[in-house]
Order: sequence, then structure tokens, then C-alpha cells
Amino acid sequence: MEVADEDRLRSSDSLLADELMETWTILSEEERIEGFRLLAPEEAEDLFLGLDAPHQVELLRSLPPRERQIWLRQLPPDDAADALQEMPEEERESYLALIDAETRREVTALMAYAEDEAGGLMSPRYARLRPEMRVDEAISYLRRQARERLETIYYVYVLDAEQRLLGVVSFRELFAAPPDKTVRDVMRTDVVSVPDDMDQEAVSDVIAQHDLMAVPVLDSEGRIKGIVTIDDIVDVVREEATEDIQKIGGTEALDAPYLQVGMREMVRKRAGWLAILFIGEMLTATAMSYYEDRIARAVVLALFIPLIISSGGNAGSQATTLVIRAMGMGEVRLRDWWRVFRRELAAGLALGAILGAIGLLRVVLWPKRAATYGEHFLLIGYTVSIALVGVVMWGALAGSMLPFVLRRLGFDPASASAPFVATLVDVTGLVIYFSVATFFLRGTLL
Amino acid sequence: MEVADEDRLRSSDSLLADELMETWTILSEEERIEGFRLLAPEEAEDLFLGLDAPHQVELLRSLPPRERQIWLRQLPPDDAADALQEMPEEERESYLALIDAETRREVTALMAYAEDEAGGLMSPRYARLRPEMRVDEAISYLRRQARERLETIYYVYVLDAEQRLLGVVSFRELFAAPPDKTVRDVMRTDVVSVPDDMDQEAVSDVIAQHDLMAVPVLDSEGRIKGIVTIDDIVDVVREEATEDIQKIGGTEALDAPYLQVGMREMVRKRAGWLAILFIGEMLTATAMSYYEDRIARAVVLALFIPLIISSGGNAGSQATTLVIRAMGMGEVRLRDWWRVFRRELAAGLALGAILGAIGLLRVVLWPKRAATYGEHFLLIGYTVSIALVGVVMWGALAGSMLPFVLRRLGFDPASASAPFVATLVDVTGLVIYFSVATFFLRGTLL
Repeated sequence: MEVADEDRLRSSDSLLADELMETWTILSEEERIEGFRLLAPEEAEDLFLGLDAPHQVELLRSLPPRERQIWLRQLPPDDAADALQEMPEEERESYLALIDAETRREVTALMAYAEDEAGGLMSPRYARLRPEMRVDEAISYLRRQARERLETIYYVYVLDAEQRLLGVVSFRELFAAPPDKTVRDVMRTDVVSVPDDMDQEAVSDVIAQHDLMAVPVLDSEGRIKGIVTIDDIVDVVREEATEDIQKIGGTEALDAPYLQVGMREMVRKRAGWLAILFIGEMLTATAMSYYEDRIARAVVLALFIPLIISSGGNAGSQATTLVIRAMGMGEVRLRDWWRVFRRELAAGLALGAILGAIGLLRVVLWPKRAATYGEHFLLIGYTVSIALVGVVMWGALAGSMLPFVLRRLGFDPASASAPFVATLVDVTGLVIYFSVATFFLRGTLL
Repeated sequence: MEVADEDRLRSSDSLLADELMETWTILSEEERIEGFRLLAPEEAEDLFLGLDAPHQVELLRSLPPRERQIWLRQLPPDDAADALQEMPEEERESYLALIDAETRREVTALMAYAEDEAGGLMSPRYARLRPEMRVDEAISYLRRQARERLETIYYVYVLDAEQRLLGVVSFRELFAAPPDKTVRDVMRTDVVSVPDDMDQEAVSDVIAQHDLMAVPVLDSEGRIKGIVTIDDIVDVVREEATEDIQKIGGTEALDAPYLQVGMREMVRKRAGWLAILFIGEMLTATAMSYYEDRIARAVVLALFIPLIISSGGNAGSQATTLVIRAMGMGEVRLRDWWRVFRRELAAGLALGAILGAIGLLRVVLWPKRAATYGEHFLLIGYTVSIALVGVVMWGALAGSMLPFVLRRLGFDPASASAPFVATLVDVTGLVIYFSVATFFLRGTLL
């Protein structure tokens, strides 16, 4: 009976592998090991290589030492470096000792770089040629290189004796070239490259802008240290988008999957911004106390406070997220601030007019309008309506300009989060509302 | 003088090309044409191929018909299809007529697919082999294919006579294999593929999960129609993140760069949500009118309304963006709702306690506390503090659960935007605040 069951599992191996991969994060350590051991060798290899570094480390740690070595050696040097960097410092040595000498040298060199710079992303296993080789020699030389593990042979880099980058030839071009030409004849010399300390986001922009499949990484002397391939860039783009989204939501970047962040860490990353916003928002209480006597005289004014200030906050939240993302995508630059200002002025006016109209109708057509808002309901309606136009327009302007100000001051524009803008707009929204109210209601209610 | 200037421009050609590419979106049509014509042929080609489809179309339209043909023919079929789909229907025929017959067939086939499904992303130019070929035959056959334009030779697909996919071999594996084996001997048969009508986000998940550089696209009969390469996926990932960010900010997805969206379109995409939120927020006015007599008796209560409801909104905004992103990244699934609920209950309690403590100190230690808040300032302090704990906890729970509810109902969880959650929390926040106030202040202020 048990055997039959195991057979059934074996025959649907790749289904099991897919399922295991999908549920990995929610399985317990025992369930993972158990599932992992049920896989056929190639399936297990695919699964292990497909995990991200923290999960690879978890799995390695729960395996007996001999298996640990087998699996650690499956990792290409860049992934091995990532995995080792996930471990506490004191454990790294014992794992490094499991790797063969040459790879260990590569891994140690990679570990010198920060994770989020070009050097931390690159693989040292790229295809290389000398310029004086003939095309047919080059192809059979590459054939030998391909037997070792190469990250990609999409591009082949042409180096001088000092490892300085002379040119690049795509494998397809080399392959299609006449066999008796030299590599120098067919290579391109205008190579796009990045320095080893370039930030990963900038690397991803370079690759996207030039439509590359890989980019070589050079040290300060122009020597090639490795290549960053486009599949690493997919992860970078996802990571950076996640950071932006979390900042826009008013949290510090979590730097780890939501369910894996410890509770203390989670509270710390959220409490900071929440407390800053709270202290900023206290200004509303100060502003309100300034208008306290007016509220006492016309309590009906208080009814519309949340409605009006939240509308400003919503308009500001829209504007700030649109501008932050447009900046992140390189569609909007610092010098575009005036164009954005004019657009948001117009959009804010239109949006304010729409909300103002709805607000006016709400007050004027309310069935029990006189009972709820008193005999001056029409004046209240005008007050709400005009205040909405002002507050929404102000929200759109403040929300769109704040990312420019932050960027100009050297901060991350994504810190102009929706809650941050809403808080800013709340205080000024109150001032706008009570100023409009004073204008319309002086002599009647106020 | 003019000649010298032009010479200077020519000599710094690639600098000019980079600058032109960077400023493209903000140049006028005349400036673009002028800059484009100054480029050396290869530079111009790089620039043209690097533009996105709408900009390629704009450039094509502003060129004279003869040049139009030259440039249109530079585009690989998938990019040509994207460009044609950007044009008004009545213009497409005249542009299609400019392309050579074989490419036209490919382009027309691609245009049948929606832009955001696998068929709309794929290129029909993939490397293909027959299973019975010998490895060395296969390599020289690929050499001939490589002379035509292939999208990539990273993977080579093995097909039967009916174009059905039998297996795949990476070019590196083929290249490293003994020359006298057959393709069938070295190919892998467990090929990951996607159907031609799969959504682009799902395609990107498949590629990321299996760490692929390309994935074959099959029709309903298992015949290969093309391949989607990872460089297209980078664009998909960016696009999807942009859509999520815009929705989180409370706007409909713009589907175009911020500065290129017309004013009417911009207002339309923002007014919808803003009006819905406004109408929802009107409930606050209704709730407030219910508490009007209490505000009249204790105007001091009104002072803290914006502070308290916005804190709930901020906590909700944090929770909802964290959960939306975690869902988008596949880190959190529907069945995880209970784990998320417990986490947010704990986090909300902790965050509420922190804000509550700050709020209590603010009221109790305020220099003019008795003048501002009256003799019962301590009771007011307790009210604010306890209400904050309740409102923040409620905000975190509502913000984190709303994406689950939306997803369960078949909507996009990203619609649980920060402003949407803030609006929801505002109304309930008022109820919580006034309930706490009634409890603490009954018999004194109320």
C-alpha cells in the first residue's frame, strides 16, 4: 500500500515539484525536507536552484553535512555568494570550506560587494575571447568554455591580456560570421558597460535603455569583473517596485516577504512613519483649537470637516503616487516640475469642481436640509463647495510638488507617501475650509 | 562656423544619441526629427529600436514615405505588430504594405492577439531543429538560421513535422554535446510552455518561477507559435508594478506615461475613484450629525477628530499596501488570511499603543492644557488615547483584510487603495471615538 502510494507520487513527479515550489513558504521545515527528498534528482536540483537565497540557506542548514556539500556545489558563484551573505558571519567559513578552491576564490571576491550594487549582482562566469582569434577558432574555443558552467553565451567579451574589455560580439553574430575573419573584425567596440559599484537600479536602467541581455561590469581600471544578466534584472525591478509601493503606503521598505518579517521588526518599520505622521497631524488639533469658538457658534461646520480634509488627502494621494512612479520610470525629471505644476493645477481645478458640485447638491437636495443644516443651508452648501475646490486643488499641487522637493533635497521621492501628503493637506485643508466659511457665513452663522 | 559645429556634433555622436534618447519625451516633433537626422546610421537604428511603440509610430509618421519603409523594416515582427496596433485602424493597411511579404504574414498573425497576452508578447523568430539531426548537423543548421534574424538562440526548440513541440535544448548544452549524438539524445522533454492566450502577468510568473530566459508559446493543439523572451518580461514587470502603484494611489491605471496622458483622460481616470470616495466619505457627515449634540456640549471633542481618524487611515494604508504587494508577489495567498489577520491584530495593537501613549502625553503635558482642554483634560487625554488604540487596530485589520475580500469576490486586490481604506476607516473611526468619549465623559462633559 505504501509502495503503491510512493509510486503514484513518483510518476507525478513534476506536479509534486511545482506544488512544493508554490507552497514552500507556508510549509514547515519538516514538510519541506520530506517533500524535497521525494523528488527525482533533476526535479530537486530545479527546485533548489529556483529558491531565493534565504530559503536555500534554510534548506542547506536542515540537511546533513554531506548533502549540504552536494547542494552548495550546485550553486553558481553569484548565487553561492548571495546564500553565504544570508548566513550569520560565524557560519560562513564552515560553508565556504565545502566549496572547491576555484569557486571559493570567485565566491569570496563576490562577497566583497554590497548586494545591491553591480558587483553584488554579477556572475564571474562569462564567455571571453582574444581579438586575434579567427572566428572558427573562437567558436571551438567557446565550445570548450561552454562545457564548464557559463552564465550565458549570449554575448562574448573580447579582452586583452590585462583583462581590459576591448569589444563585444553577440554569439549569433559570431556564429553567422565568415570563419576566416578574426574576432577583431566582427566585434563591436562601442560596448555599454557599468562600474562595479553602480547601484542595481541604475544597472537595470542601463540594460533596459539599451535593450541588452547582459552588461559587463568593470572595475576602476577598466578590467572586466563579471556580467549582470537580464534575469537578475527582473528580480531587481520587482524588488525596487516593492520598496516603492511600501514607501508609498507609508512604511519603511520591509526588505523581506511580509509573512517572514518578525513582529518586532514589523512594528518598528511601521511605527516610525506612523509616529511622525501622528505628530504632524497634531497640528490639526492646534489649528482646530484656533477655530474652536467658530465651531461652538456653528457646530454644523464640524460635520463637514472629515469630508473636506479627506478629499484633499485623496487628491494629494493620487497626484503624489502618479508623480513618484513617473519619476521612478524616468518619465518625469526634476526640470519637468513646471509642466507637472501646470497639469496638476488644471486637473486639481477640474476634480475640485466635480467634487464641489456633488457636495453642493448633497447639502441643497438633502431631504431634511433645514433640520440638519439650519436655515442657512444654502450658504453652508456654498461654503462646502468652494472649500472643496480649494482643498482638492491644493491637495493635487502639494502631492505633485512634494516628490520634486524631496528629490531636490537628495531624499527618495517615494517618501512622499500617500499618508504623508494627506497629513500635510489636512492642516492646510482646515485653514482653507474655515477661511471660506468665515467669508460666506460672517453676519449669519459666524 | 556652421560646418565646424556640425563636425563637433558628429564626433560626439553616441553622446548625442544618449542625450536624444533621454530627452525624447520632452522634445517637440521638429526637434526629434532634427536630432534623429544628425545621428550616424547605427546610432539612429539603436535609437529607433530602443523607443517604445507609441514613439516609434510618432517618428514613422513624421518621416517621408520612403524613409518610413526603411525604418519599418528594421523592426522585428513582434515590435512591428505592436507599432501597427498603436495606429488608427484605417492607417494600418498602408503601413503593412511597406513590409516584405513573409514578415507581413508574421505581423498579421501576431496582431490577432491582445497586447497583454502571451501571443501578443511573443516573437515568431525562434531557433528550431528536428529531433533526428546529429548535433554537428544541428549546429551548422543553426548557423544558417542565425544569419536570418533570430530573436535568441539561447534555447533551441525541437519540433515534429506538425510544429508540435517535442523538446528543448539550450544552445550551450547543444554546443557542449558530443557531435555525433542526435538532438533527441541531448534534448530535455519536460519543457515548460505557456498557452497563447495566457495573461502576461502569469507568463512572467512562469518565467520567474522556472528561471528561464525564454518560454515557448503553444496554441490549443500544442503547436509552437513563438517564444516570449525575458527582456519582454522586464517591461511586463514594470508595467504591472506601475498599474499596482497607480491603483494603490487611488487612480485608475493610466496605461501611458504621466506627461503623455491628455488632460481630459487624466481627469476621467482620477475623478471616478475620487467621486466614489467622496460619496463614501459623506457618511462621515451623516455620522457626525448623529453626534452633533455631543459636539455642541463639548466642542473640545471636535479638535481631535482629524487626528484620530487620520491615524486610523494611515495604519490602514500601511496594512493594505503591504498585503496588496505581498499578494502581487505571490507571498500571500487567499488561504493565508487568518495568519495575516492575527499578525495585523498584534501589529495594530502595538502601533495603537505607541500612538495612544504619544497622544496621552500631548494632552496631559500641554503647557496650557486646562485653558485649551478645560478642567477635565485628563479624561480627554484618556479618551483620545483609548480611541487611538481602537482606531489604529481597526485600521490595520480593515486595511489588511480588504484585499482578501476583494480578491475572494474576483476583483483586483490593488483596488483596496490607501484612500479607499482611509475612507472606510474614517466613518468607523468616528463611531469608535465618540463611543469611547461617551464612556469616559458621561456625567462630566457629556
